Amino acid sequence: MAVFTEVTDDALAAFLDEYDIGGMVAFRGIAEGVQNSNYSLRTTEADFILTLYEERVDLDDLPWFIGLMEHLAQHGVTCPLPVRGRDGVALRHLAGRKAAITTFLPGVWPRRVRQEHCAPLGAALAQLHIAGQGYAASRHNSLGPDGWGPLLAKSIGGADEVNPGLGDELSTALPKILAAWPTNLPVGHIHADLFPDNVFFLGGQLSGLIDFYFAATDLLAYDVAVCLNAWCFEADGSFNITKGQALLGGYNRVRQMQKAELAALPVLCQGAAMRFALTRLYDWVNTPPGAFVTRKDPMDYVRRLRFHLHANSETDYGG
Amino acid sequence: MAVFTEVTDDALAAFLDEYDIGGMVAFRGIAEGVQNSNYSLRTTEADFILTLYEERVDLDDLPWFIGLMEHLAQHGVTCPLPVRGRDGVALRHLAGRKAAITTFLPGVWPRRVRQEHCAPLGAALAQLHIAGQGYAASRHNSLGPDGWGPLLAKSIGGADEVNPGLGDELSTALPKILAAWPTNLPVGHIHADLFPDNVFFLGGQLSGLIDFYFAATDLLAYDVAVCLNAWCFEADGSFNITKGQALLGGYNRVRQMQKAELAALPVLCQGAAMRFALTRLYDWVNTPPGAFVTRKDPMDYVRRLRFHLHANSETDYGG
Repeated sequence: MAVFTEVTDDALAAFLDEYDIGGMVAFRGIAEGVQNSNYSLRTTEADFILTLYEERVDLDDLPWFIGLMEHLAQHGVTCPLPVRGRDGVALRHLAGRKAAITTFLPGVWPRRVRQEHCAPLGAALAQLHIAGQGYAASRHNSLGPDGWGPLLAKSIGGADEVNPGLGDELSTALPKILAAWPTNLPVGHIHADLFPDNVFFLGGQLSGLIDFYFAATDLLAYDVAVCLNAWCFEADGSFNITKGQALLGGYNRVRQMQKAELAALPVLCQGAAMRFALTRLYDWVNTPPGAFVTRKDPMDYVRRLRFHLHANSETDYGG
Repeated sequence: MAVFTEVTDDALAAFLDEYDIGGMVAFRGIAEGVQNSNYSLRTTEADFILTLYEERVDLDDLPWFIGLMEHLAQHGVTCPLPVRGRDGVALRHLAGRKAAITTFLPGVWPRRVRQEHCAPLGAALAQLHIAGQGYAASRHNSLGPDGWGPLLAKSIGGADEVNPGLGDELSTALPKILAAWPTNLPVGHIHADLFPDNVFFLGGQLSGLIDFYFAATDLLAYDVAVCLNAWCFEADGSFNITKGQALLGGYNRVRQMQKAELAALPVLCQGAAMRFALTRLYDWVNTPPGAFVTRKDPMDYVRRLRFHLHANSETDYGG
């Protein structure tokens, strides 16, 4: 659920007065998203998304996120373009929150991933990586490898309640992953959370990428590993190598992965599975009963982790 | 949060093929609403709302609700118009649920009620009551007076946890309200849940009424009492008689309330406060921790009930 902060109509009217985007027509909360409050905003001129940034986002990094989206949109990535007010400022204040208006993207995110989605997804990810090259600022990935140890420490107390032995399992796997973590692969700006609900399709074509609030500067191939985790496993937990081939093929047609990047896929996939297992475990352990957000099962990613720990090379992913 | 049921894109595409409303452009879950799953649906032709009916709605009564909305929309009420498929059927099936597409209404619901909202609201309610006259079918109000005793019985076990003494307070008030309940007032189709989040405004005008899934055939003046409860109390619990005057004035300009209806306002308001106190209490007691919906504080309506129990006549409401 994604309306944590309510906006009064008079505050909204005053806020819109700071923009030159037409008069209000409609304003509805959007159900998708768990980090921020998102509203669909229609004016007499166009459709927009109004986002109020909640605590889960790194508020200090909002200018970086906004700047990245502007840069990507200007370099051919179909992503939300932050809209500037009359004074040229895109990041503003509303209802006690930092807030921004972005353009609306048409399309529907795939509730059920099909093979046909995976090549366009890979290609769009590669385009994002290339388009991001000119954006000079960098952002440390706080949910990257050096964040996983602290996350595990804060969650391990509740791990065995989720699944007996889970604390040991993660504690054993983490140091092995960190020890094998590659250091000499190409770095750039990555989305870092390109799950199906952040990718829109329309008429069989990929029509947009959204939600850049986990984006960071990190190994490009790690972003590929996140997508292999998020797009190529079936509901029964099995890896669909046809989807993996399509994803890697789509990526490589736009940006050819280096041999070292391909060779690192098993450990990068292990790390990506660890990252989502840990944040889900953290949320599971630390979400108070009755809270607004639905907790996601950490075991979905623990099972992916087990698969990746047995992978030998990129060929296990269709590479 | 109002997406309880996810719709796969292929199921959605097949569903839309049954309509003649253009091709898909966008599809987003809507945050508002607690009964059903609502999606904002844009096609190449227009905007619509897709609703999947969940268990909280009386599913057997869906044809009645759909018929009422059609009737009201055809008689000048700006409410969602159910859209029929190519076969003429409006109530269909999707993702294991009954489902319907309705037209999209522009506007924004008032997060903070101002006095200027209350006269248009009263007038729109009266128009709804008049427009409903020609709809022949009737629907028993399952959340009307004869439903309150059973609701209290199912919730009283947890009442004192919400507020010490609350069980006794409600048990004492309910029989008095039922004994004084009027029987000879005008009956018609009522909205029965016309809270601010079900009323849109645009440019200072009321632009639409939504969410008819509590509508029923009952005392028209009871609907007025529901609105006095929902629109005319301030956050501190005080009744704003200026808002009450505006609401009743707006109503009376369109449909003049009878003397007997006005005289019954205190007990009707007591009943309306009891109804919402009881459903909120029921939800509070019966909503499992971690559930998807936010529980609303029953005490907001218990405090209103206390006010109404001390009201002497319609003049206490601005009538």
